Amino acid sequence: MARLVMKFGGTSVANMERIRNVAQHVRREVEAGHQVAVVVSAMAGKTNELVGWVNEGSKLYDPREYDAVVASGEQVTSGLLAIVLQDMGISARSWQGWQIPLLTSDAHGSARIAGIDGKNLDEGFKRGEVAVIAGFQGIHAETGRLTTLGRGGSDTSAVAIAAAIGAERCDIYTDVDGVYTTDPRIVPKAKRLEKVAFEEMLEMASLGAKVLQVRSVELAMVHKVRTYVRSSFDDPANPTPGTLICDEEEIMEQQIVTGIAYSKDEAQITLRRVADKPGVAAAIFVPLAEANINVDMIIQVTSDNTTTTDITFTVPTADFERAKTILEGRKAEIAYGALEGARDLVKVSAIGIGMRSHAGVAARAFKAFAEKGINIRAITTSEIKFSLLIDAAYTELAVRTLHSLYGLDAA
Amino acid sequence: MARLVMKFGGTSVANMERIRNVAQHVRREVEAGHQVAVVVSAMAGKTNELVGWVNEGSKLYDPREYDAVVASGEQVTSGLLAIVLQDMGISARSWQGWQIPLLTSDAHGSARIAGIDGKNLDEGFKRGEVAVIAGFQGIHAETGRLTTLGRGGSDTSAVAIAAAIGAERCDIYTDVDGVYTTDPRIVPKAKRLEKVAFEEMLEMASLGAKVLQVRSVELAMVHKVRTYVRSSFDDPANPTPGTLICDEEEIMEQQIVTGIAYSKDEAQITLRRVADKPGVAAAIFVPLAEANINVDMIIQVTSDNTTTTDITFTVPTADFERAKTILEGRKAEIAYGALEGARDLVKVSAIGIGMRSHAGVAARAFKAFAEKGINIRAITTSEIKFSLLIDAAYTELAVRTLHSLYGLDAA
Repeated sequence: MARLVMKFGGTSVANMERIRNVAQHVRREVEAGHQVAVVVSAMAGKTNELVGWVNEGSKLYDPREYDAVVASGEQVTSGLLAIVLQDMGISARSWQGWQIPLLTSDAHGSARIAGIDGKNLDEGFKRGEVAVIAGFQGIHAETGRLTTLGRGGSDTSAVAIAAAIGAERCDIYTDVDGVYTTDPRIVPKAKRLEKVAFEEMLEMASLGAKVLQVRSVELAMVHKVRTYVRSSFDDPANPTPGTLICDEEEIMEQQIVTGIAYSKDEAQITLRRVADKPGVAAAIFVPLAEANINVDMIIQVTSDNTTTTDITFTVPTADFERAKTILEGRKAEIAYGALEGARDLVKVSAIGIGMRSHAGVAARAFKAFAEKGINIRAITTSEIKFSLLIDAAYTELAVRTLHSLYGLDAA
Repeated sequence: MARLVMKFGGTSVANMERIRNVAQHVRREVEAGHQVAVVVSAMAGKTNELVGWVNEGSKLYDPREYDAVVASGEQVTSGLLAIVLQDMGISARSWQGWQIPLLTSDAHGSARIAGIDGKNLDEGFKRGEVAVIAGFQGIHAETGRLTTLGRGGSDTSAVAIAAAIGAERCDIYTDVDGVYTTDPRIVPKAKRLEKVAFEEMLEMASLGAKVLQVRSVELAMVHKVRTYVRSSFDDPANPTPGTLICDEEEIMEQQIVTGIAYSKDEAQITLRRVADKPGVAAAIFVPLAEANINVDMIIQVTSDNTTTTDITFTVPTADFERAKTILEGRKAEIAYGALEGARDLVKVSAIGIGMRSHAGVAARAFKAFAEKGINIRAITTSEIKFSLLIDAAYTELAVRTLHSLYGLDAA
C-alpha cells in the first residue's frame, strides 16, 4: 500500500465548495488504495486578512505572535477538510503542526524544518485515516511556540512530510496543470513538460517561475521526493497527470533547453573606475549584504586603463535606492569614479541539463538577440543555465525568441 | 503583587481599534502593579463564520474537528492583543489552551475543565509578562486533541484560570457595566447592583439573566473567585467599578429581593388524569431526558378524583413538538387521559438571599399579579427564589410589577 502526499494551496480551498472538490481528489487516491496525507494552506485571502491585522497591531510586531495568529489559517482548513472527508464516508483527522509534531528552528516567520516525527502519522495510517495536515507551520521544541515556515511554506511542509513518511510521491495541486516551458501568457505555444529534473526546476524557480517555491524544490531534490505539479481544477474523476519533478536519471531524453524563465524588477548598478586591488569587492558587497540587499549578477569588466575596473551588479528594484545610498556614503572608502544605475530591467534565463554536454548554447542566444536588436546588459552562466539582463520593454520579445530558438514551441 | 484575571468578550475585541482599547484597560492594571492574565474570546462574528463553515461541511460533523476549527478564533485574538500590548511597551505573550496547558475532558464542543497547570504562567509572571490567554479552549491530555468548552466557555476559562493562579479577582468585561436588578430595556429604573452573592448570581443566570454563563458562576462559587462584571466600553483611564459577585458574607446588608429575571420561550405540557401510582413520573420523564429535553418546572396537582392526578411541566419552546410526539407515542404506557400544551409562555423570577429569613415574599407577588390581572400558570420556589410561569404577553408588566413591589426601582 503506497503512501502519497497531496498538497492544496489557498485558491484550491478558497471556500466550502472548493474544499469539497479537494475531497473528491483525495477520495480518488484513497479508493486507488493509497495511504494519503493531505497538506492544506489557509483559505485564499485569510492569510492576508490575518497579516493585515498583525501589521495594524504593530509595525514592529513580535514574530512569535505573528506566527500564533497566522498559523490559525491552515488550522481552520485542516479541520474543515477532515469534516468534509468524513461526510463522504472517508475516515480522516486533522493534524496541526505541533500535534505531529513538525519541529522547526525558532526563526519565527521563516522557520526551517528541523525534523518530523512520523510515528503519530503512522498510527493514523494504520487506523485507516487520511491525515489532513495544516501546512506552513510547526513548533519549536524548546519554547513550545508555534512557528511558520514563511513563503511557500505549505509546499515545503508537503515535501518534508513526504520524505518523513516515505511517500511514493508528493502531488502539489495548484491553479495550473503543470510546469510549462515558459509563461503561457507570453508564449501561447508554451508546452506543459512531462518531466523536469530537480536541478532544472530549482533554477527555474530561482529564476522567476512561480509554480513552486525554491525551498520546496531544494528539499525534494535532497530527499529525492518525486513531486508532481498538477491542477486542482481538473475533473477529480479524470485528472491530467501534471508535471513530474524527479531525478534526472528518470528522464530518458534530455532537451538541451527545458524552459525559459524571466524575472522582473531587476535594477543594475555600475561603479566606474574602481581601483583594481584586493579587498575592493568586499568593500562594496559586505555593506550591501549587511543591509539584507540581495545582490544577484556581478560582472567585472576591465576599464579603459589597467589600474581600475568597472563593476556591474544587479539588485531587486525595491532595494535600488537603498543600495545607491549605501554606496554613495562609502564613495571615499571604495574609491570609485562614478556610480551609474538603471531600473526597469529584466533577467531572461534559459535552463536545461542538456547544456552540460552541449557547447555554444548561450552563444546562439547572443546572435539571435543581436538580430532582433535586443541589447544585452549583463550575462551570467552556470552549468545548466544562462541569464541575460535586458531592458524590460524587450521581455516578451526576448522570451519568445529564446523559446523558439531552442525548439520549445508546440507543433 | 496581586494577581488579576481580565476577560474580554467578542464585541470587546471585534476589531483592531477595540483590541487597542482593551490593551488600555490592561495597561491600567499593569501600571497599578498587578500581575495580569487576560482571557480573550474570538473577534465578534468570527466564531459564527467558523461554525457556519463546519455546518456547511457536514450536518453530522466530527466534534473533534469542530473544535480544531473553532478554537482558531481565540488563537487569533490572543496573538493580536499580545502584539498590541508589546506595541505599547508592555511585555506580553499569547498562550493557547494547549500551551498552558488547560486540560479538559474529551467531551468535544462542551468539554469540562479537568485541571490547569499554572507553572508556565507563573514563570511568565516572573519574567514580568502579561499572559494573553485564548479563552474557550483546552486540550485533552490523552489524545492531544484541541477541545472547546462550549457556550460561555471564555468566562469559564477566566474563572478557572483565576482559581489556578490564585488571582485576587477576575474581571469579566462585557458590553454592559454590571449586573442590574433587572433588564433595563424593560425597566428603565433598574439599578446596577454593587454586589451580588454567588448563589443569587447563579439563580439569576439560570433564570434568564444573560450577563454571565451559569458554568462560570458555579466555578466562581466553588473556588470563591471574586468576580467583577464591568464594561469594556468605559474610559480605560476612569472605569466604573461594575458589579462584584462574591461570597454572601461580603455583603453587609442583604436585600430581600436582589433581582428580577425572566426567561422567554417556555412551553407548558399538562397530562390530565394520570394514574396516581409509583413509577408514573419515571415513565414520563425518563424518555424526555433520554431525548435531551430539558424539563424545568414540574407541578403535580390532585385531580377531580383521588385515583388520578394532573402533571404539568415546562420545556423550552424549541423542544415542545418533540416532547409532545414522545409522550403521545407512550400514551398507553403512561396511561393519561389527555395531553394539553401551551406555547408563548415566560417564566418570571425573583431572586434574593434575604428570602431565607423572610416569610411570605412570594405571596405578595401572587396578590400583586392578581390585582393586575396576570394569570399564574405554575409556581416553583426554592430557598432564595421563586418563579412564576405566565403568558408571554404579560412579560413586561410582570417584571415591572415585581421590580416595584420589592423596592428595586431607583429613586
